[in-house]
Formats: sequence, structure tokens, C-alpha cells
Amino acid sequence: MPRYRSLLEYDGTDFLGFQRQAAGRTVQGEVEAALRRIGWSGPTLWGAGRTDTGVHASGQVIAFNFEAWQHGPAALGRALNANLPNDVAVHAVAACDPRFHPRYSARGRRYRYTFYNQPGRSPLARRYAWQVWPPPDLAALEAASASLLGQHDFASFGTDPDGGANTVRTVSRAAWAAAPGGWLHFEIEAEAFLQHMVRALVGALRRVGLGTLTPDDFAALLAARDRARCPPPAPPQGLCLVEVLY
Amino acid sequence: MPRYRSLLEYDGTDFLGFQRQAAGRTVQGEVEAALRRIGWSGPTLWGAGRTDTGVHASGQVIAFNFEAWQHGPAALGRALNANLPNDVAVHAVAACDPRFHPRYSARGRRYRYTFYNQPGRSPLARRYAWQVWPPPDLAALEAASASLLGQHDFASFGTDPDGGANTVRTVSRAAWAAAPGGWLHFEIEAEAFLQHMVRALVGALRRVGLGTLTPDDFAALLAARDRARCPPPAPPQGLCLVEVLY
Repeated sequence: MPRYRSLLEYDGTDFLGFQRQAAGRTVQGEVEAALRRIGWSGPTLWGAGRTDTGVHASGQVIAFNFEAWQHGPAALGRALNANLPNDVAVHAVAACDPRFHPRYSARGRRYRYTFYNQPGRSPLARRYAWQVWPPPDLAALEAASASLLGQHDFASFGTDPDGGANTVRTVSRAAWAAAPGGWLHFEIEAEAFLQHMVRALVGALRRVGLGTLTPDDFAALLAARDRARCPPPAPPQGLCLVEVLY
Repeated sequence: MPRYRSLLEYDGTDFLGFQRQAAGRTVQGEVEAALRRIGWSGPTLWGAGRTDTGVHASGQVIAFNFEAWQHGPAALGRALNANLPNDVAVHAVAACDPRFHPRYSARGRRYRYTFYNQPGRSPLARRYAWQVWPPPDLAALEAASASLLGQHDFASFGTDPDGGANTVRTVSRAAWAAAPGGWLHFEIEAEAFLQHMVRALVGALRRVGLGTLTPDDFAALLAARDRARCPPPAPPQGLCLVEVLY
């Protein structure tokens, strides 16, 4: 069975997340509908990560079987983009090994969370950033996020996406970068994440940035393995799945 | 009569431009409606620049008389923002000289035009950039835009916004800056602009970037003072009014 893989970019604002649902507009639902319009008969495509409602992606990865397609991967990409709405697009469509699975073959994921540190509500930043004022203390953020590196039980920050009890994950990168104009980016990479883990971490890190949690409090929160102690999660619009590593 | 001035930021996507119209959603219309909800009785506010349909602003300037307001400029800003939709906001509301007029007092305006140079339709760049592929030739763009500096008759690129025949303007800055990820910004500053001038210039400059016009062709187009020779304008979503100078 010929299988194809593709990068997927989407503006999550008007989606109820990646994963197809019985009702409501989802990324998977829109891409499967576009595939059906060009002759695909399903039953499903596979994605690397189940992004939440309102979360964006510049580097989601999908794959699907499509035996009936006879025109090559470049034409498949053009046909899909012509049939997709303007808030989702495929890039780099290619034939792949029939054993390739975007989720189970992945050896890592990288997310970026964007802050916008300016006073006053910003109409131009609102779709793709969390506006925070006053600006967070970058040294405190860096000290706290260093405690995330390596293998830990992240039970304070999320649940097993498969409904099990395995909340141990390995974080290989957690880095902050400020850019002119009040922009601040947090990049985090792990082999895999718990459900809601990045937004929960960022919600707690914001408190560190504001000084209401110390870096030591943050390390203690991680060590507590207690979801009930975690501050509210960061809002979805600042989060973007930027890369899946294979 | 007490007069107030304010910066105005808006996402132009869902507006038919700045200026109030008999029908359709405009920035001026929304701000005047918010003013009326807090007790203002009009008849009009004044803006520094009449941005087109779909054009953004991070630094538009407005002013209005508001004798009935008794709570100070900071409270006025909070009250306005609470009554404005999420795609428009005021910043830095202040009392000002009753002779201050955002348009006639201005001694300059600065616009920024944003390109996104990547292949494939981008859902995340579409609202705030013009996607162009292949990437334009930056040296050619710089050579062509240098010919804009100084005082010229810009009749090839626009019309007198007051309906007259004065198409002479003085450009004091025209600079390009590339940023990682395929972003390219063009900043242009002048004491004033013709109607549609920035988008017309950028549309012609794009051809220079692609090599279908040379920098000499561009200089000849400027010298021709003939609107009919100008290539189609750049789309509005890449354009942002970033600063008005007083």
C-alpha cells in the first residue's frame, strides 16, 4: 500500500484541535475531507501530535495510505493545498516507507511558546502570543527551566495521553530567547510530552517570571508529582508545534 | 474644549480601512462607537492616516474633543479598551493641546511592509505578510529603493489624497531588513504619502526583486510620472502604519 508523509502547517485559532471529533472543525477532519475530494477513501490519516484547541503548528507531520493516487507526490501536495482552507496547508509531500508512522516513529518533538511583553492589549499580537506585563525575569526563567532537563516524572504537569500511568518523560532542551519589540520565545524539546504538559509548564514558569514562584519552588513543584499543585495552564494561542524529529 | 490624543493599534484584516463609511466596519467607526458608549457626543475623531482595507497599524494616532470626561486620561484609555473589539486598542491616551491635529500636525509617517519568503502557502504568515517565492534579490531591492530618497514627483505611484494635483513628496528613509525564517521587512518614511503609494511602490519593487524590472527600470518608472505604467500594487495584509512623527 503506497504511503505518503507530509509536513502540516496550520493556524489553530479556528480549530478544535488536531484530532478528528464527532462534531466541530478539526485539522484532521479538514485534511481528510481534502483527501476525499481528490479520490482518497480513508479510513484515517495519522498525525505526530494531538495539538489542543487553538494551538498552532508549523511542523506537524502526517502520513496516510493512498493507493489510487497516480500523479506523484508533488502533484499530490498541490492538489491537497488547492482543496484545503486557507488556515491549513501541506508542505514537502513525499512517498515514504509503509512502516512509517508519524507518532510511533518519532524520536522527539519541539514546541515553541511565544510571549509578548508590552503593556496594553495588543490586537496584532493576540492570535500568536500570550501577552504578559510586566516583562518576566529572564534569569529566573532560565534557572527554573534548567531543572526540566533530563528524565523526570512530570505528573505535576500533565497526564499520560494514552490514559495510562506513565508520566516519566525526558526533556532534552528548554531555552529562552528574547527578540526586539517585547517578544520572548520558549523552546522545549522532548522525546514525547504528556497531555497539556507544555502549557502547564509555561503557566507555572510565568509565575516564576513574575516572582510569585522562585526557581526552587518550581523545582519543588516538579518533584511533588502532584497535578493539583500546578498553577493554571498558559493559553493555547502562544503554543506552536514546530518540529517532529525522526 | 479638552482634547485627547492616543496611539491606536489594529489588525486591519476585518476592517474596510480606517475611515468611517456609510456602510461597513471601519476602525474610525468602531472607536467612535466605543467613545459614544462612554458618554462622548462627537461629531468626529481625527486620524493621522487613512489606511486602506486590510492594512494594519501599530502606531496610528488619533485625537478627539471630550469635554464630558472627568476621570483623567489613564481611565479614559481603560474605558475605551473595555469598549473596543479585540482587533483594535488604544495606547498612551493623553490630554493634548486643543490645536493638535493628528494629520495636519504630523511631520512624518513611517510604514513597514512585510514579506514572507518561503515556498508553499503559509497559514501562519497569511494575515500579516505577502508571501513571495523565490526570495527577492536584496541587493537589487536596495539599489532600486535608494532612488526613492529625497524629493520626487511620485505620480507613477499614487494620487493626491485630497483630490488635487500635488504628487510631490519627500522620502527620508527606504530600508530593507531580512530576519531569520524567510522574513523580509521594508521600512519607508516620508513627510506624507500619496494615496496607495506604499503598496504601489512595493508592487513595483517586488518585480525588481524577481529580476523582471532592473533598478534602472524602477528609476525610469519613477521619472515617468505615469500611473498607467505602474505594476499592480502589493496586497494590503503586508502593510502596517508603524509611526507618525510630530
